[in-house]
Amino acid sequence: MPRPTRHVFVCSQQRPPGHPRGSCAAKGASALLQAFWAELQKRQAYDHVAITYSGCMGPCEGGPNVLVYPEAVLYQGIKTEDVTEIFDSHLEQGQVVERLQADKSIW
Amino acid sequence: MPRPTRHVFVCSQQRPPGHPRGSCAAKGASALLQAFWAELQKRQAYDHVAITYSGCMGPCEGGPNVLVYPEAVLYQGIKTEDVTEIFDSHLEQGQVVERLQADKSIW
Repeated sequence: MPRPTRHVFVCSQQRPPGHPRGSCAAKGASALLQAFWAELQKRQAYDHVAITYSGCMGPCEGGPNVLVYPEAVLYQGIKTEDVTEIFDSHLEQGQVVERLQADKSIW
Repeated sequence: MPRPTRHVFVCSQQRPPGHPRGSCAAKGASALLQAFWAELQKRQAYDHVAITYSGCMGPCEGGPNVLVYPEAVLYQGIKTEDVTEIFDSHLEQGQVVERLQADKSIW
């Protein structure tokens, strides 16, 4: 892929059931990743947006975590139905979706 | 972890032996990731550098791929012995290690 304008990292960390930190995988990260990839395909935005899964980014309790660079914006507790808004606003227009952004005390 | 000044993504994508695209895992990504984590621990740089593994970032043929944000600098063909220089120069000082940077035609 070419160097993207915005790069989305979807935490897909797995942990065993009952692990005290939980995991983004246990909180729906797989479906979320698929939703991002499906939206990318629908929009054919491959020339300026990249979607990549990643390992743990730290603040597991608020997951699933989605981190967007180059702005270093962390979204937390994202649902598949939020993906369109993140594309429309942030990935395409550069407008951070503030209601989904992690608290400043966390990131 | 707190919001880092620089965030390193080490591609750890696996593919079956003989796959035409190869993979960063087959090119030493696991040892490379461990080297980055070890260096992070040695420097106790957790407050300003993050190291995260990731899925495929695209240009597999030149892997292992290491992507550093917020500058969106892609390093390719990195060896464990390059890790110290990347820390000293880029992660700590903001000076890109040009000899390890992917060709402009790729990224």
